[in-house]
Amino acid sequence: MYKKIINLLFLAVIFLFSSAAAITINRIEPANWWVGMKKTEFQILVYGPNIGNAKVSISYPGVTLTTAAKVENPNYVFLYVNVAKSAKAGNVPVTFSNGTDKFTYNYPLKNRDDKSGAMGFDAADVLYLITPDRFANGRTENDNWDSVSVNRQNPNARHGGDYAGVLTKLDYMKDLGITTVWLNPIQENKMRGGSYHGYAITDFYQSDPRFGSNEEFKALTKATHNKGMKMVMDMVLNHCGSSHWWMKDLPSKNWINNDGVFLQTNHATVSVMDVHASPSEKKTFLNGWFTRGMPDLNQTNPHLATYLIQNSIWWIEYARIDGIRQDTYSYMDFDFLARWNKEVYDEYPDFNIVGETWYNKSTSSAWWQANSILSKKNPHLKTPMDFSLTFAAQKAFDGKSDNGYLGDLFEDIAQDFIYVDPYHILTFLDNHDLGRFNRKEDTDLNRYKQGLAFLLTMRGIPQLYYGTEVLMTGTKEEGDGRLRVDFPGGWPGDKTDQFTKAGRNALQNEAWDYLQKLLQWRKTSEAVTKGKMIHYAPNNGIYVYARIKDNKTVMVILNSAVKEQAVSMNRFTDIIGSFTSAKDIISSKSFPLNSAITIPAKGEYILELSK
Amino acid sequence: MYKKIINLLFLAVIFLFSSAAAITINRIEPANWWVGMKKTEFQILVYGPNIGNAKVSISYPGVTLTTAAKVENPNYVFLYVNVAKSAKAGNVPVTFSNGTDKFTYNYPLKNRDDKSGAMGFDAADVLYLITPDRFANGRTENDNWDSVSVNRQNPNARHGGDYAGVLTKLDYMKDLGITTVWLNPIQENKMRGGSYHGYAITDFYQSDPRFGSNEEFKALTKATHNKGMKMVMDMVLNHCGSSHWWMKDLPSKNWINNDGVFLQTNHATVSVMDVHASPSEKKTFLNGWFTRGMPDLNQTNPHLATYLIQNSIWWIEYARIDGIRQDTYSYMDFDFLARWNKEVYDEYPDFNIVGETWYNKSTSSAWWQANSILSKKNPHLKTPMDFSLTFAAQKAFDGKSDNGYLGDLFEDIAQDFIYVDPYHILTFLDNHDLGRFNRKEDTDLNRYKQGLAFLLTMRGIPQLYYGTEVLMTGTKEEGDGRLRVDFPGGWPGDKTDQFTKAGRNALQNEAWDYLQKLLQWRKTSEAVTKGKMIHYAPNNGIYVYARIKDNKTVMVILNSAVKEQAVSMNRFTDIIGSFTSAKDIISSKSFPLNSAITIPAKGEYILELSK
Repeated sequence: MYKKIINLLFLAVIFLFSSAAAITINRIEPANWWVGMKKTEFQILVYGPNIGNAKVSISYPGVTLTTAAKVENPNYVFLYVNVAKSAKAGNVPVTFSNGTDKFTYNYPLKNRDDKSGAMGFDAADVLYLITPDRFANGRTENDNWDSVSVNRQNPNARHGGDYAGVLTKLDYMKDLGITTVWLNPIQENKMRGGSYHGYAITDFYQSDPRFGSNEEFKALTKATHNKGMKMVMDMVLNHCGSSHWWMKDLPSKNWINNDGVFLQTNHATVSVMDVHASPSEKKTFLNGWFTRGMPDLNQTNPHLATYLIQNSIWWIEYARIDGIRQDTYSYMDFDFLARWNKEVYDEYPDFNIVGETWYNKSTSSAWWQANSILSKKNPHLKTPMDFSLTFAAQKAFDGKSDNGYLGDLFEDIAQDFIYVDPYHILTFLDNHDLGRFNRKEDTDLNRYKQGLAFLLTMRGIPQLYYGTEVLMTGTKEEGDGRLRVDFPGGWPGDKTDQFTKAGRNALQNEAWDYLQKLLQWRKTSEAVTKGKMIHYAPNNGIYVYARIKDNKTVMVILNSAVKEQAVSMNRFTDIIGSFTSAKDIISSKSFPLNSAITIPAKGEYILELSK
Repeated sequence: MYKKIINLLFLAVIFLFSSAAAITINRIEPANWWVGMKKTEFQILVYGPNIGNAKVSISYPGVTLTTAAKVENPNYVFLYVNVAKSAKAGNVPVTFSNGTDKFTYNYPLKNRDDKSGAMGFDAADVLYLITPDRFANGRTENDNWDSVSVNRQNPNARHGGDYAGVLTKLDYMKDLGITTVWLNPIQENKMRGGSYHGYAITDFYQSDPRFGSNEEFKALTKATHNKGMKMVMDMVLNHCGSSHWWMKDLPSKNWINNDGVFLQTNHATVSVMDVHASPSEKKTFLNGWFTRGMPDLNQTNPHLATYLIQNSIWWIEYARIDGIRQDTYSYMDFDFLARWNKEVYDEYPDFNIVGETWYNKSTSSAWWQANSILSKKNPHLKTPMDFSLTFAAQKAFDGKSDNGYLGDLFEDIAQDFIYVDPYHILTFLDNHDLGRFNRKEDTDLNRYKQGLAFLLTMRGIPQLYYGTEVLMTGTKEEGDGRLRVDFPGGWPGDKTDQFTKAGRNALQNEAWDYLQKLLQWRKTSEAVTKGKMIHYAPNNGIYVYARIKDNKTVMVILNSAVKEQAVSMNRFTDIIGSFTSAKDIISSKSFPLNSAITIPAKGEYILELSK
């Protein structure tokens, strides 16, 4: 039944035949466009036998065909269509003729009647990253597709999570204090085995039916908005899945890097920046494939570049998502990425994009940020990911005294002078690709609390990974599947339901309640969400920093030592000024500021200052 | 006898009295200036009882007194004198009058008749850092001064090295292949204990008599030039020694930071760059003292700023040195440092200054370099020190296979995109403040050879520390004195003379000969001294890079693995191009480039490519 619904949109296109049998169109992408876009030109990919040799014309007020571009493969034509500001919504007749044969396709131009969403996200938000196959299974009817059956025993198989599941947990997230949902890629992954992670897309315009239809995703986004939250869509423009429909009949040889032949990328992410990089290594990095099953798209092909940019804009306009997370960011052509960002922001100025700028030094994240002082050309990316901080933080909260780990954390943040805007980078303790911050060996919540207190009061846009709040663990060595386990309670018949207090054990509830308190408070704290920062080099394993916005100041004290310590306030005059009292937002304990504050072993205080 | 010679210059000044007894001048600095300087204004510090209340006038063709500036302490007056381009050399009568009392001091304006030196240094040079107290004692007569006696048993006492000693070793250095001598500070350190390291200067215009007189230093510099080498002077403008003459009667309270009261600096070097730095921490960093015995000069005092800048220019003009190494670089006021660099380069465009920009990340060195993209204002410093590379290199050559340490070294160099000019930074494996690169536990020369092959073929201006060539060792934990031991053979009666082949053991000779071969070859290699770089991320513990200048290419292969490895040349097409053959400059072994090159365990090849 669902298969039908999902295919409805495309059935009209895929199997349409003209009255004169000679003209056949198998696919038109995107399925629609809109009137009133800022950029008046858009592209239509038309795929059909020998369609490249047809004559194409358009007759519709305000709509003109700029170019009908032929490519290597005659089965494609790329139409570039201009939509004047005056054009009205309606079906635009696009006529293909081939000698005496003629076929008219009525291409829908819609009104932009949905003004919701496209809000972007910033440091006032907290992102909650969900691997949708592993979060909650709202409908078991859509579990099995493409000869792939759900198998929850296999960490690399599909487990059946879907939009319906996420929908039922929106209140859970809202209650926890999340503002923004980020789903791992939701587009079709019609791959052998099902490609549960979503990073091998086989149709850029189609939702994976195991999650639900395009309409269901749109509805989920609307529901998220209705709860006062936002939606971030994970996109992958670097590559497609090897079962992508176009792989059997590419528009041109250079549609796929290395002329469609598998070449392993060397993951040399620094080569793009490195002034000493070997040109051949850089080429292998950019043109190499992530894996054999992920053909690497060539974004220097102008038709493909436009296709991909337009795909992003289509999803924003269609589903009214608020942000995009872009996968394998640095693996793509620089100029393409810059243009992609710019065209998205030109159309949606409030929108935000976070790029997976994976590298162990912050120089890379700084290099990729819009208006970077490090890059010779403007990368236009508003939000790079701060992997450097993640690695520093993973080490920092291990209860070592002295300046060791916390010293490294301080030094990492002290590098912020290389950023144009360190307040607009994505910060995280872990994600779906990294070992989880929580560790099996932790028998108390000290590390958990310090890590989250830090993440949620430090500069940047914080991102949490689903399950952190119920103390999920998992190391990279155990395999990616282990980092992406099912949320207990998300499946009918699960033994425990950790979405509920009753389903969590005492330690999990303490963890959950701590995070909830922190997140709900954070929403109210302008000092944290909008404030500047001051920090002090750690002394005796104690790191002190503050967030300051106008007359609001939050002072954070982290004690990495395994002993209680009295922290003299004399050093922190820049923070304290004329404030006289401090109140910990978690314990509600108050402290006078004219004497030392004693902080427990491996403890943290998040202090609101007052007079 | 030497005491007399040394004091000759100042005797005339220090004990001069006017005929009218009321006007007394105890000190005039500098002792002379020159006609024909690009900057026409210079400053004269005049010190004497109540001299600030005297009326000052100058009557000399082309020379005018712009200002006679009084300061807090009436015992000082700062004269700002303009010397027109037309002014001739001669004694300029400077008249001080005080009611009826009058005194005329004939201030010498000299011709700039020495055009030698002031050459600067760059990547074509190799610096050899000498702690002059510990290198060679040419004259035992000047060993004991200021009630301080030489005690070679005490690592923190004076040992007696001097200019005369350095002079006798110039041929040794030239033979080794050094191009540039850098001496630790040579100005007077009339401190209790003698302050053998030289960093507690008690008279900025006077050579330490234990090393020799100003004239001897000038003669040493001339002799160095005559051998085709250059001289770099170590300067310290951040602080003076607590026994500096002005400490008993400061020109003004703010001459010394923290109003002359000891305050320990926090060494927070990053605070100058850190956008989140606490203002009070930054203030403590800049205004704090290095040690209690080193009062911290306040370079925001404009008279002191001019005094210090002029002192540098005086030494360049007087001794015709080629470069300056500036101590505790980042501890000083930014604007002062920028002005100091600029004024020196304005006067001597070819000159070079290297600043001790000590920090464990290269972001700092990059931030400090002239025209930095990281710094909001231009720091004007041509050569920062690459401490980050030092720390990476110290770890890199430990014979670990895989990408571990060499991978970190590669990543460090791959950060060069943050520099304006990575080819003009100072690179070093160690110096007088760091544990020596050679280690006691090394029983072979693998680490030594790899380290030096790397240092001397990598981008940057390489610096060696004296004694490296005879395998001196010493760790920071053993104390600074242990890093600065006497060069055996430098003292009369030394048991061995390691300046000679006969005085070195077999391993030392192998080390010495290797370095000599490398250094002498380096002078001839434009690829290394002027070439651009290409490098490849290490694979299996093998790091490959090349230096390329026009049709000259040098390819370096470092094998950190403890096993011999065959390195396929297929990956290095960017380097190899149409070259067919490679010859190792050390072993003279030749290799065809159409097959793999087998490199010994922990070995290195420095290959000149040919067709």
